[in-house]
Amino acid sequence: MIPREPAELVARAREGSRTALARLLTYVESGGSAQLATAALAYQAPSPYVIGITGPPGAGKSTLTDQLITTALAKGSFDGMDAFDEVGVLCIDPSSPFTGGAILGDRIRMQDHATNEHVFIRSMATRGHLGGLSLAVPDAVRVLGAANFRLVLVETVGVGQMEVEIASAADTTIVVTNPGWGDAMQASKAGLLEVADIFVINKADRAGVAETRRDLEQMLDLGGEKEWRPLVLETVATTNAGTEELWEAIVAHRTFIEHGRLDEHRRTRMRAELDKVITAMVRSRIGALAHGAAYEDQIDALLSGTTDPYRAAETLLSES
Amino acid sequence: MIPREPAELVARAREGSRTALARLLTYVESGGSAQLATAALAYQAPSPYVIGITGPPGAGKSTLTDQLITTALAKGSFDGMDAFDEVGVLCIDPSSPFTGGAILGDRIRMQDHATNEHVFIRSMATRGHLGGLSLAVPDAVRVLGAANFRLVLVETVGVGQMEVEIASAADTTIVVTNPGWGDAMQASKAGLLEVADIFVINKADRAGVAETRRDLEQMLDLGGEKEWRPLVLETVATTNAGTEELWEAIVAHRTFIEHGRLDEHRRTRMRAELDKVITAMVRSRIGALAHGAAYEDQIDALLSGTTDPYRAAETLLSES
Repeated sequence: MIPREPAELVARAREGSRTALARLLTYVESGGSAQLATAALAYQAPSPYVIGITGPPGAGKSTLTDQLITTALAKGSFDGMDAFDEVGVLCIDPSSPFTGGAILGDRIRMQDHATNEHVFIRSMATRGHLGGLSLAVPDAVRVLGAANFRLVLVETVGVGQMEVEIASAADTTIVVTNPGWGDAMQASKAGLLEVADIFVINKADRAGVAETRRDLEQMLDLGGEKEWRPLVLETVATTNAGTEELWEAIVAHRTFIEHGRLDEHRRTRMRAELDKVITAMVRSRIGALAHGAAYEDQIDALLSGTTDPYRAAETLLSES
Repeated sequence: MIPREPAELVARAREGSRTALARLLTYVESGGSAQLATAALAYQAPSPYVIGITGPPGAGKSTLTDQLITTALAKGSFDGMDAFDEVGVLCIDPSSPFTGGAILGDRIRMQDHATNEHVFIRSMATRGHLGGLSLAVPDAVRVLGAANFRLVLVETVGVGQMEVEIASAADTTIVVTNPGWGDAMQASKAGLLEVADIFVINKADRAGVAETRRDLEQMLDLGGEKEWRPLVLETVATTNAGTEELWEAIVAHRTFIEHGRLDEHRRTRMRAELDKVITAMVRSRIGALAHGAAYEDQIDALLSGTTDPYRAAETLLSES
């Protein structure tokens, strides 16, 4: 029998039970008291090293993630340090903003790893977590940490603000593009330039690699001098070309941030997460406001043009 | 001299002053007391009819918007009712989530209309509005309403959650696709299926129209029966082909929602807007929390693993 208590589940997950781990992640997705109890335990363990992978649909992220899993397990450590023999993978499929549902992506290519006991793959969806995926994903990362995972890949599909936000809450963020993909403006719009530590031009056996590289480098030039200038690599994920170089780039970036910057990096990340929790919590508390007569009165006033949303909100908040 | 007082600016804008209107919209973008005063006035006027246009970059939204402006002005009314002789256009360029900046899109194709006194075009960016673009855009629509505009087009670039949210807060929402664009999953992910009243397959002179139409119709079939089944139209915006049919579809949708549904539709929209204002306001109030010693203590506790973000947030909120 698989236990239901988060503390027992964490103990089991730490011993290697995938069923226990899966249940904990379901708690995280579902919200409520089980999620809070799980978080209380998960945040006691150190965070794994997190590699975020994002990019537009069809860029080849899944295949590249596949290759990274294989490479990481073959290496077994970062440059000889911090050994790991397991890789956790969180696949984030953005929920529809209207149904709250999620459609699982095509994970077929990852099925090679599905039966590999050293790899744990999970597609995440929001099912009730207070703050949606942008809070559920960091919680899930910490749950994997509590289950002894030292390396976690977070793959997000899409380049919207939320996907970018999730992917960028990583220690090393990889943005996957393709030859001919977009122009300077497209990348800037989505904030990808600001979050990428490594750009990968995947499908680099196709025409247009030089132009895409030139565009990216020009954008990086415009971005001014930074301590870490994002690397631009070329891969052909389907043939494994460039994966070794990508792993080396990840190790290089990790070495860079470990030199005094990892603590600061994680402090910044923790602030962002705490702020999101505070906002979600307050939002949930004031949700009750939206079901009373006073609220309906304000909506009526809004529709008749006798107030505006700012005065209406002030009125409701001062009465609550 | 252009006045600075919102009340005077609204009076001028109502008389046709574009400079006054532009300043009011800058107030809306910038937030603060001028924005609040502007909103208080703007929400007294009835809302214009809002047509939202969204879709991925490069789908041809700007050209299609161009054609819609020309067609709308040539018609001068919806099916003979509710005459208008001006069209307001808000172009929403998503901000980078990290710099807070915005890059204005290529508005060159709209320059034909830039000197047309019957058309008012504005690219919007967030500059300090409490709730970002998702609140600034509805405010801007109401400001246009206060300036006597009866028809407003809101064009958003991109298919991220925020862009979809902004475009779908319209009376009629048009989603622009291209032949060969994505598959069933792509559209579902972004929530486009749920928000579209009309799908436009633009660039319909290219190969793949039948497949794209079939995919869209299949997805709509899967969506179950609805009172309004989204129409699927084909256009070639560069040659104006299909624009007349698009206008007719807009009129048909407007007639549909006017039959008892417009009030309900706008009530729902008003609720969504009020909820966003409440959340933004509370968030702004608790922002001060993030600058005190108590907050830093909680961050330290988080980094040392002695608390989790949920307990930390509870602690801070109970102390505030």
